[in-house]
Amino acid sequence: MKETVLERKSPRVSIHDSVEEMLERIRADGLTNTFDRYAQQEKIRCKFCLEGMSCQLCSNGPCRISEKTGQDKGVCGIGPDAMAMRTLLLHNIMGAGTYGHHAYEAFRTLKATAEGKTPFSIKDTDKLRWMCQKLGIGLSQTNNKMAARLADLLTAQMRIGNGEENLMVEAFAPKKRIPVWHRAGIYPAGIEHEEQSCVASCLTNVDGNYVSLAVKALRLGLATIYNAQIGLEMVQDILYGTPYPHEVNVDLGIMDPRYVNIVFNGHQPWIAVAALKMARTPQVQERAKKAGAAGLRIVGSIETGQELLQRFDTDEVFAGLTGDWLAIEPLLATGAVDVFAMEENCSPPAIRAYAEKYQFTPVAISSIIDMPDLAQKMPYNPAEAGVTADRLIDAAIENFGLRRDAIDVKVPKIVQKAVAGFSTEAVLQALGGQLDTLADVIVSGKLKGVVALASCSTLRNGPQDYNTVTLVKELIRQDILVVSAGCGNHALEVAGLCNMDAVGMAGPGLQEICGLLKIPPVLSFGTCTDTGRISMLVTALADHLNADIPDLPIAVTAPEWMEQKATIDGVFAVAYGAATHLSPVPFITGATKLVKLLTEDVENVTGGKVLLGDDPFDAAECICKVIGEKRKKLGLA
Amino acid sequence: MKETVLERKSPRVSIHDSVEEMLERIRADGLTNTFDRYAQQEKIRCKFCLEGMSCQLCSNGPCRISEKTGQDKGVCGIGPDAMAMRTLLLHNIMGAGTYGHHAYEAFRTLKATAEGKTPFSIKDTDKLRWMCQKLGIGLSQTNNKMAARLADLLTAQMRIGNGEENLMVEAFAPKKRIPVWHRAGIYPAGIEHEEQSCVASCLTNVDGNYVSLAVKALRLGLATIYNAQIGLEMVQDILYGTPYPHEVNVDLGIMDPRYVNIVFNGHQPWIAVAALKMARTPQVQERAKKAGAAGLRIVGSIETGQELLQRFDTDEVFAGLTGDWLAIEPLLATGAVDVFAMEENCSPPAIRAYAEKYQFTPVAISSIIDMPDLAQKMPYNPAEAGVTADRLIDAAIENFGLRRDAIDVKVPKIVQKAVAGFSTEAVLQALGGQLDTLADVIVSGKLKGVVALASCSTLRNGPQDYNTVTLVKELIRQDILVVSAGCGNHALEVAGLCNMDAVGMAGPGLQEICGLLKIPPVLSFGTCTDTGRISMLVTALADHLNADIPDLPIAVTAPEWMEQKATIDGVFAVAYGAATHLSPVPFITGATKLVKLLTEDVENVTGGKVLLGDDPFDAAECICKVIGEKRKKLGLA
Repeated sequence: MKETVLERKSPRVSIHDSVEEMLERIRADGLTNTFDRYAQQEKIRCKFCLEGMSCQLCSNGPCRISEKTGQDKGVCGIGPDAMAMRTLLLHNIMGAGTYGHHAYEAFRTLKATAEGKTPFSIKDTDKLRWMCQKLGIGLSQTNNKMAARLADLLTAQMRIGNGEENLMVEAFAPKKRIPVWHRAGIYPAGIEHEEQSCVASCLTNVDGNYVSLAVKALRLGLATIYNAQIGLEMVQDILYGTPYPHEVNVDLGIMDPRYVNIVFNGHQPWIAVAALKMARTPQVQERAKKAGAAGLRIVGSIETGQELLQRFDTDEVFAGLTGDWLAIEPLLATGAVDVFAMEENCSPPAIRAYAEKYQFTPVAISSIIDMPDLAQKMPYNPAEAGVTADRLIDAAIENFGLRRDAIDVKVPKIVQKAVAGFSTEAVLQALGGQLDTLADVIVSGKLKGVVALASCSTLRNGPQDYNTVTLVKELIRQDILVVSAGCGNHALEVAGLCNMDAVGMAGPGLQEICGLLKIPPVLSFGTCTDTGRISMLVTALADHLNADIPDLPIAVTAPEWMEQKATIDGVFAVAYGAATHLSPVPFITGATKLVKLLTEDVENVTGGKVLLGDDPFDAAECICKVIGEKRKKLGLA
Repeated sequence: MKETVLERKSPRVSIHDSVEEMLERIRADGLTNTFDRYAQQEKIRCKFCLEGMSCQLCSNGPCRISEKTGQDKGVCGIGPDAMAMRTLLLHNIMGAGTYGHHAYEAFRTLKATAEGKTPFSIKDTDKLRWMCQKLGIGLSQTNNKMAARLADLLTAQMRIGNGEENLMVEAFAPKKRIPVWHRAGIYPAGIEHEEQSCVASCLTNVDGNYVSLAVKALRLGLATIYNAQIGLEMVQDILYGTPYPHEVNVDLGIMDPRYVNIVFNGHQPWIAVAALKMARTPQVQERAKKAGAAGLRIVGSIETGQELLQRFDTDEVFAGLTGDWLAIEPLLATGAVDVFAMEENCSPPAIRAYAEKYQFTPVAISSIIDMPDLAQKMPYNPAEAGVTADRLIDAAIENFGLRRDAIDVKVPKIVQKAVAGFSTEAVLQALGGQLDTLADVIVSGKLKGVVALASCSTLRNGPQDYNTVTLVKELIRQDILVVSAGCGNHALEVAGLCNMDAVGMAGPGLQEICGLLKIPPVLSFGTCTDTGRISMLVTALADHLNADIPDLPIAVTAPEWMEQKATIDGVFAVAYGAATHLSPVPFITGATKLVKLLTEDVENVTGGKVLLGDDPFDAAECICKVIGEKRKKLGLA
């Protein structure tokens, strides 16, 4: 295993033609962009940082570990394994904290909605009742009262301390996992408590043991999924509806410059949903038409787009999804965007020049977002969701007036179809309500196994989405169903792997199943925040079979992880008991004992482990091998 | 201003003879140590890291900013100022989170004590009533009920969200500051909320604006002091007594190898106090004597030592304080330690070899502490404080049996006197209850001003504690009273600046005041966690004079900050409105706009600013100049 950056074998920087096409314009216009900055940075990478052998935490540093020249410890005395694991844990904390922030916003939105203070209402009352039942909240009260109690309980559970019963874990974890987690010392407290405990452990001269730091990461991973992700996604289902499979439009070709286009970007769908509801009224369409536009459209970018895509039909008002985070600069260069509204990552910080060149209005709609010279800031407050949506519509219509005649538009003529909106409920429905059907096709070997993909998009291991798409093609070819989430999911949607035409790329067994159940070989399960939602499906299967997670022929892959939320998702998957492929190789290669812990020894504790490998064909082979071994243990061919 | 590491002008690595003496032994014994590792690291420092122009957060990195060769942004597009400020904010979060963790432990200890579950009781009922009164808790109930309600309220306040009234800020902030903080957008929510909000802002592609990131740091700094520090210190006063000035013994010479010696190290005094209470019983002394020892002693190391020192007399059982964190390895090399019990930073990770060579038993007494091959772990739980203390006593007596005949002891023959235990209450008492007295001597110019020192100890800007001691000598010589906290305070105690003999080093005005009030020229105010306690004194003065903080002839210095708690203390001081000297220069020198913001522009917002300078004489001059300017504005000579 090596930390070496893959050499590019292709002059392409993206597998998406639309992105390549827009990049030509961006370069011609002399704008800096992520792809070219990546190439620039390649010239001055730090090898110590790549290996995780660098620390900048305290004033006795910065330190490097170089065993060859005698620096086998930092000034404080920390060794290579703890140094690398501490940095990784810090990144995990950042991911956990961001999911925690999203959950905080979700729960207060539910509470405010229950109090009648938002433009939203309880849309999925079945899910509300189901959640309340699972968490011991009485059902003989009004929906709003139930919702308020649920919001309070979920918020309080984020904060419970050690030794308390974690109600979300008890309700949603696989039954056979809970004793394993207790034994391993990773049964989690609430996410906020675990975050603080991990933060304090990372301080200089506190926890210098890589094993202890790794255990803390595993516990934090469990807290993240159970106390933040699952709760917030269920709350979003309650507010905006549970995802349902339906065909949608994706890729940059969905942009139509004749319309006022408001793009929502990030992860948190509050204002996007409020704006979509308003945009569906004749009054708003009329306002846009008066300004000379064909109408007003809501456009989804990255995860916020996927949150909409899962729950709403694409139509005259909701245009669909543009792509993953590396498609943002290309999207903005089309000259067809009026407002770019941002509430979470990825909101790249250097888009000011794009706003000037292509005349759009960037707006922060969360207090966490900012960038240089950002004029428009509308921090989120549930009670003001309607007002904020209205202000965005005004800003977009105003921008349209400035943009219409001033900007040469260039929109790639590529629109792809995808079936979005899978969920545990939808899969069960496709199976006719019978998990046995799924078990049967696995036992028969028509379906070799299931791989959950939860990933970003990166340039480190090849052109944008090359690794993701290549790996997934290999997996479905070998009769493995892929369930996907995150920017990697957008990549697969845009690459055409999430529609019925893709069935032809699958192996014969999977082809048969797809035909039978009328599903594509890659099930779009939403955003990286839906990692928890995917686990719910796997948990249902495990509990149904009275099996533990490591017994199942499943695996997890993040073939292009990029940011810190991906790292905590990966850590969760290992704690959950899954073999978890990560590429690019994390910055830990200087820490040989840590690498062994994560790729081998941890399997004895949780049943999960990390698989490394930056070549998608090798990675597919490795994942198939793991699934084959699991099948063999179950006595399956 | 430059990031250059100061060249050592002296062969010494510490100003303390005891440390230098022990270092000879450590080197002769062939053990790795912080001082020599520092010298080793000097050979391979990364200039990008030193300037803050390096980022390792995401898989598109690691990135460096090198404007000369064209890399003026990271791959994501982040610029130099936001890159450096984001790293600084991450460090601030680590500091805040650690104080938050300490506060969590304090509040649950108070709660458990109120419920009769700990070996502690409510010691300072006046302070309990005073806190309850300030926070609106009714006084007509039992002390235990009041204490339980106070614990609940302080815990809940750590978690309040935006827009809620922060009761601790309202109760403890200077009256004139609150509107300033509202205007600047830095009136804080609870510390846990601010942490999570800051963490989410630091994620890749979220907040790319250095100004916004700096504003978040300021808000976090206020939350840290008001929602964690002041609450936890007041709770420790309630449980263990409010500090009172009294003469104590410090430096490594306090170690007596004939005794069973349990050293407490860190910041959180729970188990140390429990053990001290037990050690004062004849039964425990008898146990030690039966094992052939002269008795059993409790020894204080760094901040835990100072927490004890502030509140307990040194005597036959409590030996005193050994020194600051750089004295830990020297202490362990004396061969006179039996148990080294650790609950927070600084617990250096490479002391295993010391434990083997000098036969002591390292024990983690908090879940956040670990290090390679640590066998003894007793995670803190208030209800088990007594049991844990007893286990430590057993372990120490057992170790004594192994150590007594096996280890050559070497204890430096240096014991220093210090007056520890100042507090707002104590200062008021010294002033005869009249803040006017303090105001009068400032107006008269006998006292030019007050400088609060809250600092660690580092090797970056010279030998251990050289900068701290030299700067403070300069300040008192110029009739500036120094109020000190943190490892820097231990440095001053050990260096003999906190006793009455030091009055002779002060300028004539300060000498007169010291003689009059019977105080040393440096008032030992405790640990870095007492930064909040120091602010209470300054706040009392400001409110008494109906003045705002930036109007007062005061300043703050951290002449040897080392870890991340120091950085959040520094940020607090700037938000509080104080000119705040920081050395070593933080890793921000590549970020020219950020440097200007912190050293100049922020003054227009909070009235505070950062002063940089690694030479203690220059720094003293700079601080005196600031104080002179403040005096001039007040019309004072």
